[in-house]
Amino acid sequence: MIKYIAFDADDTLWENEPYFRETETAFISMLAPNSDYSETELKELLYHYIVNNVPLYGYGTRSLMLSLMGFCNQYATKHLSEMIEQTIALGHEQLKKKVVLLAQVKETLHKLSKNYQLLLITKGDLMEQNRKIAESGLVSYFKYIRVLEEKDNESYQSFFNEVGVDVKELVMVGNSYKSDVLPVEEIGGHAIFIPYKSTWAFEHADKKDSDRIFERGSISEVPVLITSIEQQNSCVSPSL
Amino acid sequence: MIKYIAFDADDTLWENEPYFRETETAFISMLAPNSDYSETELKELLYHYIVNNVPLYGYGTRSLMLSLMGFCNQYATKHLSEMIEQTIALGHEQLKKKVVLLAQVKETLHKLSKNYQLLLITKGDLMEQNRKIAESGLVSYFKYIRVLEEKDNESYQSFFNEVGVDVKELVMVGNSYKSDVLPVEEIGGHAIFIPYKSTWAFEHADKKDSDRIFERGSISEVPVLITSIEQQNSCVSPSL
Repeated sequence: MIKYIAFDADDTLWENEPYFRETETAFISMLAPNSDYSETELKELLYHYIVNNVPLYGYGTRSLMLSLMGFCNQYATKHLSEMIEQTIALGHEQLKKKVVLLAQVKETLHKLSKNYQLLLITKGDLMEQNRKIAESGLVSYFKYIRVLEEKDNESYQSFFNEVGVDVKELVMVGNSYKSDVLPVEEIGGHAIFIPYKSTWAFEHADKKDSDRIFERGSISEVPVLITSIEQQNSCVSPSL
Repeated sequence: MIKYIAFDADDTLWENEPYFRETETAFISMLAPNSDYSETELKELLYHYIVNNVPLYGYGTRSLMLSLMGFCNQYATKHLSEMIEQTIALGHEQLKKKVVLLAQVKETLHKLSKNYQLLLITKGDLMEQNRKIAESGLVSYFKYIRVLEEKDNESYQSFFNEVGVDVKELVMVGNSYKSDVLPVEEIGGHAIFIPYKSTWAFEHADKKDSDRIFERGSISEVPVLITSIEQQNSCVSPSL
C-alpha cells in the first residue's frame, strides 16, 4: 500500500534550473569581451569550475555567486571591478526571483492530498529553499518538509526514520534521476521520474530497469499512475 | 519533569566565533593599505555591510565570503584581483577548519545522555553545520539534530511539534541570549545561558528576568543545575 507521496521541489514543483542558466549566460556574455577566451570556451571552463566547487560550496545561488566571482577574478583581463559588481547584481536578482509553479502542480497536490500524506524533500541551500517553500503557497499540502544537504540513500533513509515513514509505502516524484529516482528506489521505495525541459548536466544519471521506477511527462499523470501502482502491488501480494 | 536537553552548537559545543573574527581581522589588514580608509573605519563599515546582507545571504562562512568580496570590490583602490584571490583563500581556510570541542563538552554530554534525551539545534548554513556535526564525534549522543534557518519562537516550536517534544519538558543550553535563551523561554521552556568569550555583536540581546532562565560559566555545571531545576519544579507542582 502507498501511504506517502514525496515531491522534489526545484523543477518538479517550480521553475529553478532556467534561472541558473540565464544567470550563467548573462555572466559569460559580460566576461568574454574582457577575457582571452571565447564564450564557448568560458562556458565549458565555468561548468568544471562550478562542479569542482560543489564539495566546498554546495548548491544554490550563493554557491553560484561565489563560483562566478572566483571565475571572473581568474579569467578577466580588464574591468574586473565593474564585472564583480555586475556579478553580485546578477546573483541578487536570482536570489529574489519570484517562485513560478509549474503547470498542474497545485491541482495535483490538492487531489493527492485527499488520499495520501505528502512530503516535500529538496536539497541545497537551506535559506534559499525555505524562502521558495514559504513563497510557493503550497506549505499546507505537506505533512513533512525537509531540506537535505544531499539526496543520497543515507540521507533519505535517515529522514524517513526520523519521521517514521516506511519507504516501502512511499513514492518519490522528481525531475532528477540521480537525486530523486535512484536513491529512493535503492532503499526500497517507488519513484516517478518527470523530466524537466532543462536539467543541470551534473544531475545526469543512467537510467535503470526496475519495476519500481516509472516515467511520466507531467505531474498531472501522477494520481492515475499511483492508483495503478497500488493495483499492481495488490496483484503480486504474497496472499496470491 | 525535564526529559529533553537541547544544545546549541557553535560556541556552545565547539569553537566558531573566533574563526570569523580571525578571518575578518586578516581581511581588514589586507584591505586597509589598499583603500582610503583606516582599519578601524573598515572594521565598522564591514560590520554594517555584513549585517545588512544577513536577510539575503544568511549566516555562515559562504555568506561571509560573499560579503567580504563585495566589500573588497567596493573599498579597494588598488590590487583588487590579488585581494579577491586572498579573500577566497581566507574563506576556504575557514571552511576547512577542524572542529575544536570546548572544554568538558564530551564529558557533560556523556553524563546527561544517561538520563535525558539530547537534541542539537543550531542555525545557519546547512552544509557547513552538517560537516561540523559529522566531524565533532558527538552525533551518537543526540536523538535529534536539526539545523534551523533562524532560531526564533516559530521555528523552535515547529521543530518541537515535528519530533513530538513538549517544550515544557525541555531545557535549551547555549551561548546566544538572543537565539538560544529568549525564544525557548518565550514558548514555555527552560534555558541555560553559557556566555562564550567572544560573541558576535549581532547576537546581543538584553537579559530578561525569568525563573526559567539560568546562567552558568561552563557547560560542566549543567547537570547539577538541571537536577536543581527538577527539584524546584517538583516543589511548586500543583500537587503541593
